Amino acid sequence: MTEAGGVLLSGEDFEARLRQIGAERYHNLHRFHHRLHSGQCSFTEVQAWALNRYYYQAMIPIKDATVLTRMSEVEDRREWRKRIEDHDGLQPGDGGIERWLKLTDSLGFSRPYVISTQGILPGTRFAVEAYVEFCRSRSLLEAIASSLTELFSPTIISERVAGMLAHYDFVSRETLAYFSQRPVQAKRDSDFALNYVKTHAKTRAEQNLVLAALEFKCSVLWTQLDALWGAYVDGAVPPGAWVAGQGSDKEQAA
Amino acid sequence: MTEAGGVLLSGEDFEARLRQIGAERYHNLHRFHHRLHSGQCSFTEVQAWALNRYYYQAMIPIKDATVLTRMSEVEDRREWRKRIEDHDGLQPGDGGIERWLKLTDSLGFSRPYVISTQGILPGTRFAVEAYVEFCRSRSLLEAIASSLTELFSPTIISERVAGMLAHYDFVSRETLAYFSQRPVQAKRDSDFALNYVKTHAKTRAEQNLVLAALEFKCSVLWTQLDALWGAYVDGAVPPGAWVAGQGSDKEQAA
Repeated sequence: MTEAGGVLLSGEDFEARLRQIGAERYHNLHRFHHRLHSGQCSFTEVQAWALNRYYYQAMIPIKDATVLTRMSEVEDRREWRKRIEDHDGLQPGDGGIERWLKLTDSLGFSRPYVISTQGILPGTRFAVEAYVEFCRSRSLLEAIASSLTELFSPTIISERVAGMLAHYDFVSRETLAYFSQRPVQAKRDSDFALNYVKTHAKTRAEQNLVLAALEFKCSVLWTQLDALWGAYVDGAVPPGAWVAGQGSDKEQAA
Repeated sequence: MTEAGGVLLSGEDFEARLRQIGAERYHNLHRFHHRLHSGQCSFTEVQAWALNRYYYQAMIPIKDATVLTRMSEVEDRREWRKRIEDHDGLQPGDGGIERWLKLTDSLGFSRPYVISTQGILPGTRFAVEAYVEFCRSRSLLEAIASSLTELFSPTIISERVAGMLAHYDFVSRETLAYFSQRPVQAKRDSDFALNYVKTHAKTRAEQNLVLAALEFKCSVLWTQLDALWGAYVDGAVPPGAWVAGQGSDKEQAA
């Protein structure tokens, strides 16, 4: 059947298109990740990555709560709620955000400085906020589709953990604990989201919106690494953003 | 009087703080502008600048209409409305957006390609949308304060026009017509906005919000140039963004 946007794709073809977007646009292909995983990053660059990425981690439950406000089905909300539990934890000291803070602790940052996000790059802030806003203002189908980058995350996480442990003496399995939990969670979450978009995108126009949402989300991740590269690899730190030495436990104690 | 955020600044000191932000953070200081104005940009880099900045120009009336929705005073709306008239014009063929399209025309782009914004950098999109969202979600005082970068624009515009005319044989006074109108408009608009924030920020906490809004807006402008530099000077074009040769009149004709 031909309609606006073309012929409806079969489930198999639709999924293949989604996976193709990942193969072409997921941020495992970004030069910053090659640098990070192959041991070429300086300590300062790893610090900058962890500091900036904290904001992304911290906003994930806000993003997921935004999606939750739009779900009319109890079953969907019950499933989606797990994402918030994963990041916020079931009790103090638990959850993905806490595990990310263990990483920034180990890199010498004070927690209040990290949590304030005062030193993050504007490019990080704008990209992350674009993601939250996308999930607020677009259809529920598109909001769920934008989470589908999790289809591709188990591979990058295994590359990252192996690469970082091999190359940096300042990281350990303990400081990278965030990543030990993510593959299982991401598999569960992306199974749900993939099934949802395959079931709910009933026209080619809707399938195209799903594909565009995944492209958008890839650009959210990619743009954060572009900003990191410009500021900390190329050395053009924008006015007001973190520079090496700021936000450390030592600075706070001094 | 001491209160949350410190002692209330005098009008003179408050204005001096605002001008200090411009002296430290306005995008005339960005390396991309040094490159553009001194004739070091390639034709492709000038194209990329004009193509991406189109999106900023095109969203300015949307941003200003957002501010308009929040103004309860007829006099304020009447004044602010001029900004929309400046960009959208009083009749077809008139206005700042049309003048910007004359520039992209002269650089070989097809209008439908430029207007579609399909080739702009995600970093451009996220920064511009952050600006619109800021004006939607923050206080009216902060929304008006975020326009205060116009205090600093007459200088950069005169540098830009003189530099580009001196160095690039593919630009002319006619193709740079956008900039010939802006200094007078920007002076009128920034006079209004400066007077507004000086009158309406009645506590130091409000003055601090005004200062932060101007810093935010400087980062919106700066981040767009960071994205341009990474993609077109450093050569790391993100997946899906414009590359030289795309979007041209010739491509369309072919």
